Amino acid sequence: MTDDVEVDFGADGLVPAVAQDADSGEVLMLAYVSPEALEQTRETGRAHYYSRSRDELWEKGATSGHTQSVEEVRVDCDADTLLYLVDQTGGACHTGHRSCFYRTVDGEEVGERVFDPDDVY
Amino acid sequence: MTDDVEVDFGADGLVPAVAQDADSGEVLMLAYVSPEALEQTRETGRAHYYSRSRDELWEKGATSGHTQSVEEVRVDCDADTLLYLVDQTGGACHTGHRSCFYRTVDGEEVGERVFDPDDVY
Repeated sequence: MTDDVEVDFGADGLVPAVAQDADSGEVLMLAYVSPEALEQTRETGRAHYYSRSRDELWEKGATSGHTQSVEEVRVDCDADTLLYLVDQTGGACHTGHRSCFYRTVDGEEVGERVFDPDDVY
Repeated sequence: MTDDVEVDFGADGLVPAVAQDADSGEVLMLAYVSPEALEQTRETGRAHYYSRSRDELWEKGATSGHTQSVEEVRVDCDADTLLYLVDQTGGACHTGHRSCFYRTVDGEEVGERVFDPDDVY
């Protein structure tokens, strides 16, 4: 038996969470997680985050259907960042790309587009 | 020719950057990046970050020798998170692990230890 790692949610009560495709290893997105979002993720096995712009708990894919089934939650050495290993349905990005990181900083598009956002949202 | 993506450094002037092993796909660490850190990274091809605790620009591996050669910098859909694709020398984590995400949130150690920090720091 091991004890849960105590996550350091810091002054704003949120930690960044990286979502990574559990099979391909592709980094899909980064979003923020509150204590409640982490609890819901661990209880349901579906990725939950906290929307800083809407100021609310958010289940990934609740609108789009592009849910993330969470295989494992990891925590970093300082316990202030999470890594969700997920099975991603459809695409993680609201632009229709598989990953939100579909561009280089030079502006070159390198990521795959997997759906048309006009059909989904 | 493409234009550079304008990164949104936000109110605190920093964005989170995920470092991923360019070959294996392993997520190695998350740290924060200032405009100057991004500029240095792009100019030198070596990963630079901004230390929030020490309040200074920081070249990864300057002390430990465990540098990150940056193959590509990606930016996410909102342009407020970066992804560094890197060749990591040694280990990314000051604990001696290859990746900072060497534990599950349940406290199980799943990551590989590649050096003894007592020998390095």
